[in-house]
Amino acid sequence: MKKIIITGGAGFIGSNLVDILSKKKLKITVLDNLTTGFKKHLNISKNVKFLKCNLLEKEKLKKIFKGHDFVFHFAANADIKDGLKHPRKDLEQNAIVTFNVLEAMRFNKIKKIVFTSTAPVYGNTNEFPTKENAAMSYQTSLYGASKLYCEGLISSYCEGYEFQSWIFRFVSILGPRYSHGHVYDFVKMLLKDSSKLPVLGNGKQRKSYIHVYDCINAILFAIKNSKDSVNIFNLGHNNYINVNKSIDIISQIMNCNPQLIYSGGSSGWVGDLPFVFLDNKKIKKTGWKPKLSIEESIKQTTNWLLENHWIFSERKNK
Amino acid sequence: MKKIIITGGAGFIGSNLVDILSKKKLKITVLDNLTTGFKKHLNISKNVKFLKCNLLEKEKLKKIFKGHDFVFHFAANADIKDGLKHPRKDLEQNAIVTFNVLEAMRFNKIKKIVFTSTAPVYGNTNEFPTKENAAMSYQTSLYGASKLYCEGLISSYCEGYEFQSWIFRFVSILGPRYSHGHVYDFVKMLLKDSSKLPVLGNGKQRKSYIHVYDCINAILFAIKNSKDSVNIFNLGHNNYINVNKSIDIISQIMNCNPQLIYSGGSSGWVGDLPFVFLDNKKIKKTGWKPKLSIEESIKQTTNWLLENHWIFSERKNK
Repeated sequence: MKKIIITGGAGFIGSNLVDILSKKKLKITVLDNLTTGFKKHLNISKNVKFLKCNLLEKEKLKKIFKGHDFVFHFAANADIKDGLKHPRKDLEQNAIVTFNVLEAMRFNKIKKIVFTSTAPVYGNTNEFPTKENAAMSYQTSLYGASKLYCEGLISSYCEGYEFQSWIFRFVSILGPRYSHGHVYDFVKMLLKDSSKLPVLGNGKQRKSYIHVYDCINAILFAIKNSKDSVNIFNLGHNNYINVNKSIDIISQIMNCNPQLIYSGGSSGWVGDLPFVFLDNKKIKKTGWKPKLSIEESIKQTTNWLLENHWIFSERKNK
Repeated sequence: MKKIIITGGAGFIGSNLVDILSKKKLKITVLDNLTTGFKKHLNISKNVKFLKCNLLEKEKLKKIFKGHDFVFHFAANADIKDGLKHPRKDLEQNAIVTFNVLEAMRFNKIKKIVFTSTAPVYGNTNEFPTKENAAMSYQTSLYGASKLYCEGLISSYCEGYEFQSWIFRFVSILGPRYSHGHVYDFVKMLLKDSSKLPVLGNGKQRKSYIHVYDCINAILFAIKNSKDSVNIFNLGHNNYINVNKSIDIISQIMNCNPQLIYSGGSSGWVGDLPFVFLDNKKIKKTGWKPKLSIEESIKQTTNWLLENHWIFSERKNK
C-alpha cells in the first residue's frame, strides 16, 4: 500500500481515515462529490490530494485511478431511512458506483479494495448477535440490498479477476465529523427546542454503535492480519444501547429534560431494523478490540456537534 | 390476475409460461428484446400480444405497463459462464432492468410480481441440499450477485411499497425450447463431430435439473397456495446428476460414443459451482411435486434440439 484512493474521503469516516493514513506517509487521493462530505474535513498536503468527483462518470474514473495500488471505497448513499423517497439513489450511488470503481481498478490493474458494508445486509434476521454466516433472510431496505450487491460484485471480482478484498459490515459509527443518524437528529432538534423531542418508534429500538477511531483501527488490523481473497468482517461493539438511554446521555450533556413524543411502533421507519447487534468475534481474532464504550462515543459525538454547529446549516440534503 | 406482463416471454421458460397461461384466458403482454428469445416460440392471438422491447428504456416501460395487474419478470442475462467477459451485462440486464420493471409497476400501481432467481445466489455454500435459509456465504459470480440484488430490490419494494412477490431460485431448467446450457453445448458439438467431446472440468460436477413444465407448475402452485408478502422458494428436483451421466444419455440418443476430453479441475469455469442441489421441501409443501425425472428431461431436451436444429444457427450470442 503506497498510493491509495479513498472514495468518500471527505465524509465522516473517510476523512478520519485520511487523517490516520496521512501520518503513515502514504500518498492519498481523496475522491468525493461533497454531497455529504466537507472539504474542510481534509488536511490537504503534498501527500493528500483532493478531487471533487462524480463516481458515475466511469471513463473519468479510469484516468484518475491510474498509478494507485489500493482503494478504500467509502463513498455511498448512507441514508437508509429515506431510501423509499428516492429509490434510484441506492441503485446509482451504491450499486453502479461500486461497479464503476471495480472497473476502474480492473482497467488499472489495482487489485486490493476495502469496502464499507453495513449491518442491514442481514435483512430481517432474527439471530442476535448476528454472525457473518447468519441464515439468509430477505432484504427489507433498498440500502441493505444495494450494499449486499456491492459485496457480491466485489467477491465476484476476487473470484474472477483475482482481486483481494476486505469487506466490513458496520453498525452505526459515532465520533468527530459524524453528520447523520439519531444523535445528529436529536441534537439538532434539541438545539431548536429543548422542551420536547419527537422520537421515531417507541424508543426501545436497540442498536450497537462504535467509535470511528475504533472502526478505523479495526480496518487496519484486518488488512494486516487477514489475508484471504475475500475477508468479510462484522464491525460492532460488544453490546448495544436503546434509543431512550441514548437520549438520556444527550439530554444530560445539553442540560435539558425534553418531553419525548413517540411516533409509536417497534420500528423507527418502514424497513428499520429494531435490533442491530453484530457478533464481533471474527474481527476480535485479528487482535482488535474496541477502546471506547458506546456511552462515551455518544458523549463525544454530542460534544463534537455542539462545538461544530456549522454542520447543521452547511450539510446538504438535511 | 387478469392482464399480465411477461418479460422475457419469448424465451425458453417465458414462452412455455405464455402457452400455459394463454389457455387460462388471461390477457398477456409479452416483452422481449429477442436477444435469446424467439418470436416463433409465441402463439400470437387476440389474448397474446408481443412487443419487442428494451427494458433499459424506463420511461417507455411505464407506458407499456399501464392497465396490467401482474408481472412475471423472466427477462435476464442468464449466461453465467461468460459473465467475466462482459461484467456490465449482469449489472444492466439483471440489476438495472429489474429496478426499471419495479419502478414501472410502482408507477402503475401494479403490486404482484413473480421473479426467476437462481441457485447461484447461495454463492460458495457448502450446505447440500441447500435450504432457502442457508448460512450466508459470498458470491462467486456476477450473475449470482446480480440476481441476489434483484431479490433484495423486490423484497424491499414489498416492505416499502406493499408489493407481493414470489421469488424462485431455479436449478437449471430443461425441456422444449431450451437454448443454453450443457445439453445445448453437447448436442451442438456432437452434431459437428460425434467422435470427441470437450468437457469443461472433470465431468464429475453434480447438478440438479428440472423440466420446464414442472417448473411452471411449481410457480402456479406457489402463487395459489403461498400468500406471504415475500415468498421465496427453491425450485429443483429431489436429486441430481453428474455431467458424465448426462453425456451418456445424450450420446445414447445420438447413437455415438465420443472420446471425452476434459479441461480438468473440479469446476467447469471460474466461478462455476461444482455441486448444485437445492432443498425442495418448502415448494413441495404447496402441494407440488416434480413429475418428470432428470433423465427423462435430458432425453426430451436432446430430442427437442435434434428436431429443432434451427436454434443452433439462429441463436444470437452463441
